[in-house]
Amino acid sequence: MRAVDVIMKKRGGGELSRDELAFMVQGYVSGSIPEYQISAWLMAVFFKGMSARETAELTELMLRSGKVMDLSGIEGPFVDKHSTGGVGDKVSLILAPLAAACGVRVPMMSGRALGHTGGTLDKLESIPGYRTGLKEAEFREFIAADGFAMTGQTAEIVPADKKLYALRDVTGTVESIPLITASILSKKVAEGAEALVFDVKSGPGAFMKTLEDAEALARSLVNTGTAMGKRIIGVITDMSEPLGRMVGNFFEIEETLDCLEGRGPQDLMEVTMRLTAWMLVAGGKAKGIDEALGMCERCLASGRPLELFMANVRRQGGDAERMLALRGKYRSQHSFELRAPRSGYIHSIDAYKIGLAGVYLGVGRDTAADPVYPDVGFIFDKKAGDRVAAGDRIAMVYGKDVTSLEAAQPLVEAALSLGSEPPTRQSLILKEITAL
Amino acid sequence: MRAVDVIMKKRGGGELSRDELAFMVQGYVSGSIPEYQISAWLMAVFFKGMSARETAELTELMLRSGKVMDLSGIEGPFVDKHSTGGVGDKVSLILAPLAAACGVRVPMMSGRALGHTGGTLDKLESIPGYRTGLKEAEFREFIAADGFAMTGQTAEIVPADKKLYALRDVTGTVESIPLITASILSKKVAEGAEALVFDVKSGPGAFMKTLEDAEALARSLVNTGTAMGKRIIGVITDMSEPLGRMVGNFFEIEETLDCLEGRGPQDLMEVTMRLTAWMLVAGGKAKGIDEALGMCERCLASGRPLELFMANVRRQGGDAERMLALRGKYRSQHSFELRAPRSGYIHSIDAYKIGLAGVYLGVGRDTAADPVYPDVGFIFDKKAGDRVAAGDRIAMVYGKDVTSLEAAQPLVEAALSLGSEPPTRQSLILKEITAL
Repeated sequence: MRAVDVIMKKRGGGELSRDELAFMVQGYVSGSIPEYQISAWLMAVFFKGMSARETAELTELMLRSGKVMDLSGIEGPFVDKHSTGGVGDKVSLILAPLAAACGVRVPMMSGRALGHTGGTLDKLESIPGYRTGLKEAEFREFIAADGFAMTGQTAEIVPADKKLYALRDVTGTVESIPLITASILSKKVAEGAEALVFDVKSGPGAFMKTLEDAEALARSLVNTGTAMGKRIIGVITDMSEPLGRMVGNFFEIEETLDCLEGRGPQDLMEVTMRLTAWMLVAGGKAKGIDEALGMCERCLASGRPLELFMANVRRQGGDAERMLALRGKYRSQHSFELRAPRSGYIHSIDAYKIGLAGVYLGVGRDTAADPVYPDVGFIFDKKAGDRVAAGDRIAMVYGKDVTSLEAAQPLVEAALSLGSEPPTRQSLILKEITAL
Repeated sequence: MRAVDVIMKKRGGGELSRDELAFMVQGYVSGSIPEYQISAWLMAVFFKGMSARETAELTELMLRSGKVMDLSGIEGPFVDKHSTGGVGDKVSLILAPLAAACGVRVPMMSGRALGHTGGTLDKLESIPGYRTGLKEAEFREFIAADGFAMTGQTAEIVPADKKLYALRDVTGTVESIPLITASILSKKVAEGAEALVFDVKSGPGAFMKTLEDAEALARSLVNTGTAMGKRIIGVITDMSEPLGRMVGNFFEIEETLDCLEGRGPQDLMEVTMRLTAWMLVAGGKAKGIDEALGMCERCLASGRPLELFMANVRRQGGDAERMLALRGKYRSQHSFELRAPRSGYIHSIDAYKIGLAGVYLGVGRDTAADPVYPDVGFIFDKKAGDRVAAGDRIAMVYGKDVTSLEAAQPLVEAALSLGSEPPTRQSLILKEITAL
């Protein structure tokens, strides 16, 4: 078999056999096929797509390029949630202890902030002492103890994806539904999940800007995961505005505590409860979404999720007392206030612009090597739908230094749009996809 | 500027600026842009194409990656012909001395056999002693003396094309009209031609299998070359059947002598005279094609083109006496006869199959490193349109050894198709394209 023939077959719209896909993936990982052939192939895949079978086989091949987490000996069901990334998206931090308290096991492997989107690992590491690089034995032990654990991906998990993603990133081949599907799904299956809920975000602050693209990705994830024998649910949620009232690393830990104490903001809780409820359905703990939502409500009110969260913080090395002491006080000295330039109703606070401003402030990063800061970000007093008078404070904005504030300010101001009439309010749950 | 942004712009169908094209071409040649980004970009170009302006600028940039032949001090006009490659295509060998005898200067740089198509340099080197690797000073001197010279491309001519073509060959990005245009045209302009006639072959034995594809390439060559200030004519000729009665390296030198002596086969002479006549028009030596054709006829009858050919052979180191002595005798001892399996009319002798069989025989080569042989190939007694009785000899087939004959025989037999009625006979000149 020659790589150039496989490239030309895909270029012509042909469906690749399992052997041809294996030849490319294994050849790339082993180094026998050079990067210039892989990148030409990826571009041909970008233009010509992949069938459901090809996507499932690519996912399997990537999965098998590395280690699959062994969770045997721990009672399941093992259910995880994955989000395509947003701004203010701290859902995982609330959902993991909530789902665990409802009886499913959550083996959660998360990522870091990149570009305008935040990262769960960066948020957790803003808790003094918290360790996100768990050894496999610790990950297993902590899941058995608290029902969930939070870690980063190890080098052994899907090495093919690390290599392929790095190449896609520099060759303009990221935005391909089958390639995104295989990348996401191979990692989630490798962490040991039997059932998965995908939060595919749609809107200006999301990777998928349109509902149509988000739905295509959600369907691809559901179909491919189902073909691999997993129970998969796709939920498309709106990412026009940052989720919740806080955006930042430690800021979002604070808001997580608010939510677990039953005082979470409506938008964030709507998304969190819905995704958690679907995890219970996917894990067989509830028969339908309404029953599952009721279970989540009662469970949250019991205080058990908050206890599990605190237990996890301690177990992963975090200084829980220090975390609580810092709450409301861990604020950079460099700040400005975003005030309403005139009276009216807030129509939107653009999540993408806020996310980009966050990179300047020190919430996120441009490249994987950049540091992030715990005590910077946004605290919103008002959000879309709220009425403001001229001069009302809309948000406090904290940055790592004065320069960062100056860079962020025009973006933050441009993120705000006001109108004279109240905006129409819609659910953040845009669509749910449960099977082929 | 980042290569990934240029890739994504082209991926989205955008038109690249001159700066963006220069960034990619110069970055590739200098090594600052890695091959995996160039190959992804080439694949995006394959799918999204290039505008006429982009193609002309890419051609210019490639041209400027190396040296342009300096023919100043020699009286022009400098006119060349380029063929996209065929089987039995020895037109250059006849056309160059004929055009030179008619008063244009032909600075001809040719290539070698690859795949099923033959190569002018390999044919010339079958003349004992003939040197195709001329120094620039020799090339200039020989053109001044005989009106034409024949050489291979030096490493200094369009190095960007050598690098790009090698990459395209292994990444499935050869078949792109703008990339083919830039590759062909940059080399032809670099050799110093002011006017060019392109013989774009169409049919089973050609690179472009359909008239539609051949016309697209011809139009692209004419439009791009015209935009670069050159006088360009595109002629689409039929390559269903091998051109002439002989296919092979020295065999085609013999047929060249036949043609220059006024005894050339009709099909080969039709194409040769037409292309040469267009060179005279493009070089300003004739006002129209009919006047030019008349000039060519009279010139050939004068015997001057044969004299120039013999002068060139001697000047480039060839042993002209040996060449003449070998004529009709330089035949491998390994041969077989292709005979008519039944009576009827020959409808076609498939040029592609004959070309592929020629690779086995030792006429052509699979990879650039393979040797070729002077005394092997095909001598056809009959061609399409001829009536044959069962058992009549249609061709003598010579191979480098017995194994090569065994490998070639099934292909040679499959190349022949007979019918009970005579085939309709059409001109080999399918279309002529003279301007935008």
